[in-house]
Amino acid sequence: MNTSIIRYILGHILKMEAAFMLLPCIVSILYKEPREGLTFLAVLIICGLVGILASIKKPASATFYLKEGCIATALSWILLSIFGALPFVLTGEIPSFTDALFETVSGFTTTGATILESPESLSYCSLFWRSFTHWIGGMGVLVFLLAVVPLSGASNFNLMKAESPGPSVGKLVPKVQYTARFLYIIYVFLTIIEFIFLVAGNMSVFDALTTSFGTAGTGGFGVKNDSIMSYSPYIQWVVTVFMILFGINFNAYYFILIKQFKKAFKIEEVKYYLIIIGVSILMITASTFTTISSLSSTFRHASFQVASIITTTGFSTVDFNMWPQTAKCVLVLLMFIGACAGSTGGGIKVSRLVVLAKTVVKELNSFIHPKSIKKINVNGKPVEHEVVRAVNVYFITFMIIFSFSVLLLSFEGKDAVTSFTAVAATINNIGPGLELVGPMGNFSCFNMFSKYVLIFDMLAGRLELFPLLIMFHPAIWKDVVRKKIKR
Amino acid sequence: MNTSIIRYILGHILKMEAAFMLLPCIVSILYKEPREGLTFLAVLIICGLVGILASIKKPASATFYLKEGCIATALSWILLSIFGALPFVLTGEIPSFTDALFETVSGFTTTGATILESPESLSYCSLFWRSFTHWIGGMGVLVFLLAVVPLSGASNFNLMKAESPGPSVGKLVPKVQYTARFLYIIYVFLTIIEFIFLVAGNMSVFDALTTSFGTAGTGGFGVKNDSIMSYSPYIQWVVTVFMILFGINFNAYYFILIKQFKKAFKIEEVKYYLIIIGVSILMITASTFTTISSLSSTFRHASFQVASIITTTGFSTVDFNMWPQTAKCVLVLLMFIGACAGSTGGGIKVSRLVVLAKTVVKELNSFIHPKSIKKINVNGKPVEHEVVRAVNVYFITFMIIFSFSVLLLSFEGKDAVTSFTAVAATINNIGPGLELVGPMGNFSCFNMFSKYVLIFDMLAGRLELFPLLIMFHPAIWKDVVRKKIKR
Repeated sequence: MNTSIIRYILGHILKMEAAFMLLPCIVSILYKEPREGLTFLAVLIICGLVGILASIKKPASATFYLKEGCIATALSWILLSIFGALPFVLTGEIPSFTDALFETVSGFTTTGATILESPESLSYCSLFWRSFTHWIGGMGVLVFLLAVVPLSGASNFNLMKAESPGPSVGKLVPKVQYTARFLYIIYVFLTIIEFIFLVAGNMSVFDALTTSFGTAGTGGFGVKNDSIMSYSPYIQWVVTVFMILFGINFNAYYFILIKQFKKAFKIEEVKYYLIIIGVSILMITASTFTTISSLSSTFRHASFQVASIITTTGFSTVDFNMWPQTAKCVLVLLMFIGACAGSTGGGIKVSRLVVLAKTVVKELNSFIHPKSIKKINVNGKPVEHEVVRAVNVYFITFMIIFSFSVLLLSFEGKDAVTSFTAVAATINNIGPGLELVGPMGNFSCFNMFSKYVLIFDMLAGRLELFPLLIMFHPAIWKDVVRKKIKR
Repeated sequence: MNTSIIRYILGHILKMEAAFMLLPCIVSILYKEPREGLTFLAVLIICGLVGILASIKKPASATFYLKEGCIATALSWILLSIFGALPFVLTGEIPSFTDALFETVSGFTTTGATILESPESLSYCSLFWRSFTHWIGGMGVLVFLLAVVPLSGASNFNLMKAESPGPSVGKLVPKVQYTARFLYIIYVFLTIIEFIFLVAGNMSVFDALTTSFGTAGTGGFGVKNDSIMSYSPYIQWVVTVFMILFGINFNAYYFILIKQFKKAFKIEEVKYYLIIIGVSILMITASTFTTISSLSSTFRHASFQVASIITTTGFSTVDFNMWPQTAKCVLVLLMFIGACAGSTGGGIKVSRLVVLAKTVVKELNSFIHPKSIKKINVNGKPVEHEVVRAVNVYFITFMIIFSFSVLLLSFEGKDAVTSFTAVAATINNIGPGLELVGPMGNFSCFNMFSKYVLIFDMLAGRLELFPLLIMFHPAIWKDVVRKKIKR
């Protein structure tokens, strides 16, 4: 295994994180928070120094395979989260390291599950950093790295493959670096547009900025206790629309950008994604409409919650834990469906479910016509057998990890709905679940063991299982040990 | 489509059911229940007449394909259940037809979910019939038909394929008919042995007989309100052991029968099945052991419940709804795992999960060695790609039906655990779930719509999804309509 290239990449990642930490430092100056600002500065310096030391020596060989890509990705996310958690611990705002790590992993993985009773008790610079982790994590740290750092040519596709969500990685343009840049340009552009719309609705600049980060990364950390509840209907509608936009496959925007509108509107995944959103909003509106509520507010809340859950953002405008069973059931199903592949959202992804549903239809057809051998078509093109296989394995692995996590959480003795939805909300990178972890609750009720299980689930969900699982493969450890002995 | 062969098979099935109904008639004589006995006799006559009329004309062509096999199977089970439900309605013991159908489908599919508040209120002949449906459904009605009626040669394998549980149908011997006979011989033999053991433990003959039927078919209808709770520890242990035995792949018994002991003990599925049972018993014993209970009774109850749930029988000796969360979580996971393929049990089946787990391991290995192309091995033999694919599709279809059923049940507004476990308990053919449908509850709390959803789930689970789903395929209906027009 090429460990030197992994070290080199990790060094770059840490330098990048140090650069990002400049932003909360600036925020601390604006809001006159010297103590917190100096803490961020100190962590920035340590993080930067470690990064420089790790990347000072260029790797002997620049080529690396999928294996190295996965390990570099998994370690990047773990290291990022550890360093990102330090400011919370050192300022004393989240004294427990486990809690701070949970919060930071939740931030980077764009989950938005919090252990804080009240986010309003945090300093401005910490609140900013917390929301900014969503924005970094949304599009992916390695994608960012690829966009700005010229690494070795062909093989860095393996890095992007390990980090990108969805069953098959579409390189928009032949060169990985340009693809990464395109993605970030669209990402920044959409974030700015949302920010402008929010400020136009009389939201404070700080709130608009953090809310935009939370929406863009489909993260969901709010800066207020009651999430988006206390803002105006206009703000709630703006957030709803942008959540849906950030859940769309970014390929669609790319096609629009290069004026291939036909191609953009032909993406099957996006079509089904919008249909699922529409049907869910109708079902929840019908289920939650009562004589005391107005139809327009019922519809707004239904739309907001559906957009928030399917895109795995996790903002809320009502305590949906109090909703009728049907509405809650729809939301739980949406948790698993998730957003489009190639978006910033989590979950199983609509495109995977489209492939899975089509295999079922194909199977039924094979009972009628046993001898017909047809491939599944998506977007008018046959889906490669390899992709179908990968989607199947993903689904199975997902279910296995999910079941084991619920079992591990049951050791605490919390009610079944809390355990089930806590795992669903973390592995799908959503944030709130139901009961104790509902929109009005938080994850501080869990013990340390359960928190680490959920941290694992958040990382597994964001990295799409295998890059994280591979770290536990004995062959990797044998390889590392053998190298050490050789030296 | 060859509709005449389907008619012919259905006719045979009804004649068979009429013959089986002689048994409750005999029971009614023994227990002096003339009114109920005459009702059974009346239904027997109608059922027999319809059967004779339907099978009087031999079909023009005796060959049929998988499609016809599936439809014949699905219709057989539906017709059997409708005629089987009539005595309950006509005697007035279960006045609602929906309830009677629910109870009968639950019987034939070996689910054991009941809508009765108190089974003890039924007459002896009805109780007998109710338990006997388990025994008929356990090994399969068409397998029985194949064992006794000589149908056309090669193509009747499609019938067996449609009804047999598990990912791949093993013909034990080249001829389907002999395979079917072998299976029934083992089945009858094991049932008799259990009956003897139960009677030896001072159980009444009636209770021993019905309990043996319930165990053999892995059904779980009890003749007492409290299931097996009030019987002696000896009886509980006997039932535990036989539940486990009936959950084992019958191929193992066949190998033992022909003295190929090595082959019998080399079946991987059986090994994992026993390991899962062992681990689950230990976990539940640890979870439910308290200072007030003795270790031996804790161990006995843990063993009984584990055996009952993994084999999808559904008997109980304690109200496991009151158990701690971990114990309940283990039971819910066991509900989905199910018994071995080729046994009388339901669930996803251990062999399917073995294949699924191995594909995940293979996928992880492919990250380390991307170029190695290895097939998965089970029982030391490579698993055909076709089988892996079928297992994947099964798992996906299962999850889709499961999710939709839970959604449909949520319309009633019952708590999430009740809805979730009610579907789990029916689609896996177990019987009791948790909360309202726990061992102390029953399914009478659901409305008519939910009951039909659950009836569908029971049939879908027992017939392994596709033979039932195919009935909803538009091509089938077009075919039927076209035929009608031609005439």
